[in-house]
Amino acid sequence: MPPILVIGSVAYDTVKTPFGEASEALGGSATYFSVSASFFARVSLVAAVGRDFKEQDWRFLEGRNIDLCGLERADGRTFRWAGEYGYDLNDARTLDTQLNVLADFRPKLMDAHRAMEFVFLGNLDPKIQREVLGQVRKPRLVACDTMNYWINGHFNALLETLKLVDILIINDAEARQLTRESNLIRAARKIHGWGPTTLVVKRGEYGALMFQRNGQGRISVFGTPAYPLEDIFDPTGAGDTFAGGFMGYLAGIGKADWSSLRQAVVFGSVMASFNVEKFSLDRLRTLTFTEIELRYKEFKEMTRFDDVVEWQPSWRV
Amino acid sequence: MPPILVIGSVAYDTVKTPFGEASEALGGSATYFSVSASFFARVSLVAAVGRDFKEQDWRFLEGRNIDLCGLERADGRTFRWAGEYGYDLNDARTLDTQLNVLADFRPKLMDAHRAMEFVFLGNLDPKIQREVLGQVRKPRLVACDTMNYWINGHFNALLETLKLVDILIINDAEARQLTRESNLIRAARKIHGWGPTTLVVKRGEYGALMFQRNGQGRISVFGTPAYPLEDIFDPTGAGDTFAGGFMGYLAGIGKADWSSLRQAVVFGSVMASFNVEKFSLDRLRTLTFTEIELRYKEFKEMTRFDDVVEWQPSWRV
Repeated sequence: MPPILVIGSVAYDTVKTPFGEASEALGGSATYFSVSASFFARVSLVAAVGRDFKEQDWRFLEGRNIDLCGLERADGRTFRWAGEYGYDLNDARTLDTQLNVLADFRPKLMDAHRAMEFVFLGNLDPKIQREVLGQVRKPRLVACDTMNYWINGHFNALLETLKLVDILIINDAEARQLTRESNLIRAARKIHGWGPTTLVVKRGEYGALMFQRNGQGRISVFGTPAYPLEDIFDPTGAGDTFAGGFMGYLAGIGKADWSSLRQAVVFGSVMASFNVEKFSLDRLRTLTFTEIELRYKEFKEMTRFDDVVEWQPSWRV
Repeated sequence: MPPILVIGSVAYDTVKTPFGEASEALGGSATYFSVSASFFARVSLVAAVGRDFKEQDWRFLEGRNIDLCGLERADGRTFRWAGEYGYDLNDARTLDTQLNVLADFRPKLMDAHRAMEFVFLGNLDPKIQREVLGQVRKPRLVACDTMNYWINGHFNALLETLKLVDILIINDAEARQLTRESNLIRAARKIHGWGPTTLVVKRGEYGALMFQRNGQGRISVFGTPAYPLEDIFDPTGAGDTFAGGFMGYLAGIGKADWSSLRQAVVFGSVMASFNVEKFSLDRLRTLTFTEIELRYKEFKEMTRFDDVVEWQPSWRV
């Protein structure tokens, strides 16, 4: 089972939703990704935290069998994010961002990490994403996230990074903003032209779509609805948890063919559906693999339908 | 194959989208429904048109094998609707509505129609929906649509109608408005309590969800993404076309068990996906059953994923 290398942020989040609030809770894109992926494969986390990073959080990540050799303790404070959600849980309002130690984060990979084959470039400056990827000797599968900030202000750097990426995992607003196409098939075609052969579009409560370029300019599509939940407490990190389940499963089976990618989208959706059930990473702390398998089967039950075999309409036009 | 009885509107629509416009084109909820359902089953259309209803439109509906004995030619003009779409094709802006002959529409069913078993109550005054249903002797499957106007202004009348309905087919904004619940599972539970055992939620470009009440307060869920289209010219009538494919298929096979309902949601989605490809009903005019079958298979290909059989993660928590 090839291990996964992930770079991204480790943070303390202060989050308010209509259902409660969490203060200085463990968060960050690389944290959600790593914990989610750790259910499927070994993960090496490359990120920076400050002197204030709590011992209990370090131990929690170690307890998930996550390799923390690349988690650098820098002088200063850990990255802080504060946000708020209204009843429309699809939209986060950022109240405060303090980069702190992330401001000077320039990862130098150690030799063991340079040998890795599965790489996830979490949402960071695209220039840094490219620098890190350049240190990996023979990447086999590279997935990448980004956000409106980099799309707006660092578009050309982002295009340079995308040339080296196999799978871009973003939400639908980002896909539209990045390509200036409102139609997702056209957006996919544009992104395919920039490098990534696969585009995964996360749509929150509406599920996920995946577009893969194949021969003769054709595009294969896979789609799944989201798992309907009666209570969604905190959507923070859902996208990173999705990416963790997605990449974790692929690394876990060591494959990335179209059939495996489809399963990976479902595992990503499964992991995200658990994550939003409690604040911060709390649901993932108690989650078991048996629960994951069960929900995967529920996705199957929710989406399958029979072929039409025994019926013909009485008349045809 | 039991025939379907549908009541609703027949209209002339004037529609503007970013891709063009159509003036005085054939439209109306019952029209879209009937033409869509006619690919699967015999449909009896009960509605009113004015003296200005065009001979060619009458012949088109007859040519689809639709029974027009209940299509009343009243003194006055046919119902008119004018609307406009921006680049977000999910949202129609109504520019003008002229009820005309619909204002005094009080259908009296003829004997043949009173014997029907599959009934679709198109978007009309819930009091009229109930009056019509009261004339049907032994309805076997009753589906119903409604809209914000009736939800706001005729809520109690709508609840009376819903007591007699098996399947409510509405969009997600309507489901939320009707139940005052933002969460769709809670909304489904409320609607199930009012009468309909099945709720179908149309979500436009995001597909459809279906919720069925079963024993012990549990809810079965089926979901499908929408068929991704590169060019969407006119979303007018997509919801009614969906309902037509949905009910048409059920009447066509004469069943409404959970497996058939799931297939019906897919056929509804297939029909809606064709309808938006051209203005008015134009795409349905040339559509063949072979094309419908092919797209049904594409939906299967787009949504299926394999079980996880050959793999166990190397360690479990």
